[in-house]
Amino acid sequence: MSISHGSAERLVVIGGDAAGMSAASQARRLKGPGELEIVAFERGHFSSFSACGIPYWVGGAVAARDELIARTPEEHRARAIDLRMRTEVTEIDVAGGRVRARDVDSGAESWTSYDKLVIATGARPIRPDLPGVDAPGVHGVQTLDDGQALLDTLTGVPARRAVVVGAGYIGVEMAEALIARGYEVTVVNRGSEPMATLDPDMGRLVHRAMEGLSITMVNDAEVTKILTGEDGGVRAVGTEAAEFPADVVVLGIGVRPETTLARAAGLPLGEHGGLLTDLAMRVRGHRNIWAGGDCVEVLDLVSGRERHIALGTHANKHGQVIGTNAGGGYATFPGVVGTAVSKVCDLEIARTGLREKDARRAGLQYVTVTIESTSRAGYYPGAAPMTVKMLAERRTGRLLGVQIVGREGAAKRVDIAAVALTARMTVEEMTSLDLGYAPPFSPVWDPVLVAARKAVTAVRDGPG
Amino acid sequence: MSISHGSAERLVVIGGDAAGMSAASQARRLKGPGELEIVAFERGHFSSFSACGIPYWVGGAVAARDELIARTPEEHRARAIDLRMRTEVTEIDVAGGRVRARDVDSGAESWTSYDKLVIATGARPIRPDLPGVDAPGVHGVQTLDDGQALLDTLTGVPARRAVVVGAGYIGVEMAEALIARGYEVTVVNRGSEPMATLDPDMGRLVHRAMEGLSITMVNDAEVTKILTGEDGGVRAVGTEAAEFPADVVVLGIGVRPETTLARAAGLPLGEHGGLLTDLAMRVRGHRNIWAGGDCVEVLDLVSGRERHIALGTHANKHGQVIGTNAGGGYATFPGVVGTAVSKVCDLEIARTGLREKDARRAGLQYVTVTIESTSRAGYYPGAAPMTVKMLAERRTGRLLGVQIVGREGAAKRVDIAAVALTARMTVEEMTSLDLGYAPPFSPVWDPVLVAARKAVTAVRDGPG
Repeated sequence: MSISHGSAERLVVIGGDAAGMSAASQARRLKGPGELEIVAFERGHFSSFSACGIPYWVGGAVAARDELIARTPEEHRARAIDLRMRTEVTEIDVAGGRVRARDVDSGAESWTSYDKLVIATGARPIRPDLPGVDAPGVHGVQTLDDGQALLDTLTGVPARRAVVVGAGYIGVEMAEALIARGYEVTVVNRGSEPMATLDPDMGRLVHRAMEGLSITMVNDAEVTKILTGEDGGVRAVGTEAAEFPADVVVLGIGVRPETTLARAAGLPLGEHGGLLTDLAMRVRGHRNIWAGGDCVEVLDLVSGRERHIALGTHANKHGQVIGTNAGGGYATFPGVVGTAVSKVCDLEIARTGLREKDARRAGLQYVTVTIESTSRAGYYPGAAPMTVKMLAERRTGRLLGVQIVGREGAAKRVDIAAVALTARMTVEEMTSLDLGYAPPFSPVWDPVLVAARKAVTAVRDGPG
Repeated sequence: MSISHGSAERLVVIGGDAAGMSAASQARRLKGPGELEIVAFERGHFSSFSACGIPYWVGGAVAARDELIARTPEEHRARAIDLRMRTEVTEIDVAGGRVRARDVDSGAESWTSYDKLVIATGARPIRPDLPGVDAPGVHGVQTLDDGQALLDTLTGVPARRAVVVGAGYIGVEMAEALIARGYEVTVVNRGSEPMATLDPDMGRLVHRAMEGLSITMVNDAEVTKILTGEDGGVRAVGTEAAEFPADVVVLGIGVRPETTLARAAGLPLGEHGGLLTDLAMRVRGHRNIWAGGDCVEVLDLVSGRERHIALGTHANKHGQVIGTNAGGGYATFPGVVGTAVSKVCDLEIARTGLREKDARRAGLQYVTVTIESTSRAGYYPGAAPMTVKMLAERRTGRLLGVQIVGREGAAKRVDIAAVALTARMTVEEMTSLDLGYAPPFSPVWDPVLVAARKAVTAVRDGPG
């Protein structure tokens, strides 16, 4: 059944989370219901929730699930956004300007036409095709439902042994959460060091710190099977070399763009499987279709290449840009520089720009420097050690990337480099940056400036 | 007596603190003693100390004076720098290429010729010409000797009542130190709100927070006299309107460039009384004389005007640049954007760029926005409120300044704006900055981005 609509244009949004609902909200700010009808479809139980907050809810730092919900379906509806929950879009008919949606509970399907479409279908967790992966006690942590199921398992099992598969952001954050719940935690990691978003020499610092937190870190280990007990529940995680006993298993391997619908509709996808857009977040070649959030690829301003980065902060920005454009205004999302921050207990981990392998892949030649400094003046109480690695382009000295591992004050220091990368500064220019200095907040040379000074020398003395 | 020297060039440095000794050290790195002789004169007892650390030593957070000394005279001498302590330069003979120095203890004077000269004479505290200002119990906090004298007074007086004159960085930091020492603290301030380096609306937030810390804040009050008791020691601080009982008084009114020698030598001074240099930190019109640190004026990159800013972090950068140039290399100090951070107990205070009155003085028309946000995701434990004020230029939308008052995480956030100012970004460009996001470190929109978004609207809706 095709639903016709009146004189108002209709904006249809697929996906009721950060990107989709930011877009809907911003479009609504610019155009009232008399001008623009907004219909949004969400297949899950929740709208506008913070997936990034799930590890802290599981770990107990955040008390209740609902704290992670920025805006409920009722709040969206009160702003004249027709958000239809538990309703899954099953087809995009680009030629016909309509989408087909199915009520998840009743199975009933219907078509809804659109004048403007926003695709915000998010990402899906990588779930390895392993024997036993569907056994009770094996959990992903992508949705609030996932988080609740994991919490139910943790509550049911007396605190014992947990294995986390994957040592990226989700993996290390879940390791912290499980430690907080009193588990013995083993992290099984395919790479040579945890946090493959860092160079291995910096990942090594994370590795050591995790061991200091009594987390057992197993590197260079590919999981081959999940072993189950007589009751069918998980018993252990197996690799080629060993078995790791587990009462609960958390999969934190990462995510891929959820673009099944877009692919079927013939929309353009990039090499990472994400939708390709222009700078106004319009799907390339489609005047009235926008896409944002975890289902798109974004331009990396440092390498000049497309990347897939699933992060709530990008999704919100995309939504803001899409909503502005869909609402008749003008905005662009120029791209990212690849900033990410995280922590494992009191260890802070940050990166921005390119790793060594990213630089090589982009055809850039570079020098690297690594320095040790402190978060505050050395004599000030609480001064904590901090390691900063910096990459600069050979000859030009342009900043290419920064990685920081340390304690308090390490993570957000990477913002200095994120802005400098956006402005395409050289490391020489960075040495005179007028950064905030007082003994409780920084040494007289901020650690980022110490790295920049050393990088200047490396560029000068490099192979020229 | 004129001392002749051999085939090596001689670099003479006036002032043995941050700028002077950084310059000496950097020049020594580039040229060995066979090529460059380095003689430095310091009239005080200490070299290379952190004046910024004095409030924390007085307050007890830093245990010992020597922790504030980055490098002792012996350490400098071990690097072939002939640092002569307690030796005051009394004249610069520019035409003759020599300086006259006096041994402070013996009174003996002699001339030392130079090929290259570095003037790093620092700043002197503003000491109001008031009745009673020299009474026992009235203290400045500029030097380690000042700090020791104040500590001796504090140790001698049972914790009672302290009055701090001035409510700038030194004033509020000393208020914290005296609270830590168990004093009842009154701050007497000439301005309408504390922290005149902020706009008054932001200073008002500091005012309220100080009251919450049981500091008595007296604004719009000019000190007219220091009252003394029968023993000659301080008894109270008097203004036109009132008297404030005091067992100890700390003067934190600020500093002026110490350029008595330079003025007498006919070197160029600016409207703030500081030496004027070129971008390589050479004194204007003098090929072989450099100046840096608290005795110079610096270019404000936002307003295009010269300012005087006494800050250790600038002094170190100047020294680095001067030492590189004096050592035969090339470096410049392009200027500042006016970043400063401080704290009073757990209240963090930060600013960069222009205040409203700075913008007006520079002929710039602007819009301002002020937003409330939090240091972490709202649901994450420890999320602390933060107020961000932003100035953007009318029509162009160029960022002009940011002020932040809040708790943990407020101060160093200003670095984002400091780099953006250096890069001359617009507030629109700032809205897509790729800043570090994770719930323990930031809301999904960093507070600085929330302010930038609001500023974009203000620029658009402004008087155009």
